Amino acid sequence: MLELARTPELCAEITLQPVRRHGVDAAILFSDIVVPLAAVGVELEIRPGVGPVIEAPIRSAADVRRLRALEPDEDLPEVAEAVRLLCAQLEVPLIGFAGGPFTLASYLIEGGPSKAQTKTKAMMLSRPALFRDLLDRLAGIAAAGLRAQVRAGAAAVQVFDSWIGSLSRPQYERHVAPPTRALFSEIADLDVPRILFGVGTGYLLESMAATGPDALGLDWRTPVSEARRRLGPDIALQGNLDPAALLAPTPVLEDEARAVLAGAPSTGYVFNLGHGVLPDTPPGAPGRLVELVHEHALEAAA
Amino acid sequence: MLELARTPELCAEITLQPVRRHGVDAAILFSDIVVPLAAVGVELEIRPGVGPVIEAPIRSAADVRRLRALEPDEDLPEVAEAVRLLCAQLEVPLIGFAGGPFTLASYLIEGGPSKAQTKTKAMMLSRPALFRDLLDRLAGIAAAGLRAQVRAGAAAVQVFDSWIGSLSRPQYERHVAPPTRALFSEIADLDVPRILFGVGTGYLLESMAATGPDALGLDWRTPVSEARRRLGPDIALQGNLDPAALLAPTPVLEDEARAVLAGAPSTGYVFNLGHGVLPDTPPGAPGRLVELVHEHALEAAA
Repeated sequence: MLELARTPELCAEITLQPVRRHGVDAAILFSDIVVPLAAVGVELEIRPGVGPVIEAPIRSAADVRRLRALEPDEDLPEVAEAVRLLCAQLEVPLIGFAGGPFTLASYLIEGGPSKAQTKTKAMMLSRPALFRDLLDRLAGIAAAGLRAQVRAGAAAVQVFDSWIGSLSRPQYERHVAPPTRALFSEIADLDVPRILFGVGTGYLLESMAATGPDALGLDWRTPVSEARRRLGPDIALQGNLDPAALLAPTPVLEDEARAVLAGAPSTGYVFNLGHGVLPDTPPGAPGRLVELVHEHALEAAA
Repeated sequence: MLELARTPELCAEITLQPVRRHGVDAAILFSDIVVPLAAVGVELEIRPGVGPVIEAPIRSAADVRRLRALEPDEDLPEVAEAVRLLCAQLEVPLIGFAGGPFTLASYLIEGGPSKAQTKTKAMMLSRPALFRDLLDRLAGIAAAGLRAQVRAGAAAVQVFDSWIGSLSRPQYERHVAPPTRALFSEIADLDVPRILFGVGTGYLLESMAATGPDALGLDWRTPVSEARRRLGPDIALQGNLDPAALLAPTPVLEDEARAVLAGAPSTGYVFNLGHGVLPDTPPGAPGRLVELVHEHALEAAA
């Protein structure tokens, strides 16, 4: 996985496959959120069926201080090269990709994927200044990686802070929103849409919007109409079909997709799944969904 | 684990330990939500570090029809016996325990714990009548198990439908709320408080309250004051300190607990954690928390 993400031709090929096969309107760079961590020297591997596993999890102030900044040109030139290859071939925009600071911190502190993020929260609550230092560094790494992708041609960027939904709102606002805000302001000059996404974050949307992204990705738990009502028209929304709908028979998939589209605003909205494509998804289903959404868009425009 | 849950003396002993050690104001029966499934003949084991694993996951209508009703007196007499032993020794109320229909269905369909509940949702969307039949049976099993616990002396019951937070609100209302409502009305005559709990369900609270429980358990993501505002004074609330706070130094734990107590209403409220005690919790921390909550209650009463 790490090798694929760092081999420009293969990374480009994997990124292109869903565009060719399903006819989607944008591509998202194939990568993993831990790729930049490996590039700054964090020893890790991505284990099949498990996810990223960190050799020496972060426990101490010395561990945090060892996490250096990302210099994309030297540390990760393959990603920019993949973006350049892609932009030469793609007829649709390419979305750049980075992990958000809390989710990256969780991997580093837990040593791998975790349900309850116990160690992460223990550090957050017990050593808030150290935790903040770590998140500031990770926000810097994410910003540097996204800047390199945009310079190479990415037309938008999405920050996946997938696990922030394990935090209470006061915890998010105190410990995670400030470095996230720094991340978005650090790349504001790039003048591309900046999207923020997390899973199970319906109760956090206002706090996430306040960190400064141009768009929020919604999972399937928050109706798009509710998000628009709560957040107002100045932030774009993206989402939010339950990926499990792609495993249902076509008429059910169509009903579920139409329900999402019926509640979506006519502007400032991008149809998307509410989370990643599930491994058991029948290969023909995403293409059928794309057709349905395109038909809907044509009808709406007519 | 299954053996412990079905050995009355051991089950009672494990249930008593936190009461003796930490001085909590109620005991909750030690068990696992799959115990009644094993009792009606579902082949399963509880694997350490994994959770319940079902030998032959439910896939077909024939599989669903094989799931028979629970006859607690014949199938699971050990649980009522444990409750009787406990009620003879306890000076605080005992809370009975059952799994909710969606969470039990998830285990049966997925074959074990699952992050995305893909197969469960696929059945729910593709074969809603079959899925409903399954959930009706599971609600019946839960109701029968709770009735036996109350008859043996339990003073309240809690339904753990832990995983309903993976559903959208329309999905919950269509597929899960009706069997849950049936469960609560089936045990309404018992005249004990009936509590419903799920993780990450802030966006579902109104729909959960409409299924008829007397109280809702809240995880740490929804402020108690917000839940009270949204649900009104007629349903009691329970929660909701982040269990990770127990891993923080005492002053931080105290701050976090005081923040929960400060937002809680003066009536119709039970202080609790927002989810289970985490494995890494220092053994002294729960007792300190109980003391703090008792002091707060005395101050509030003074």
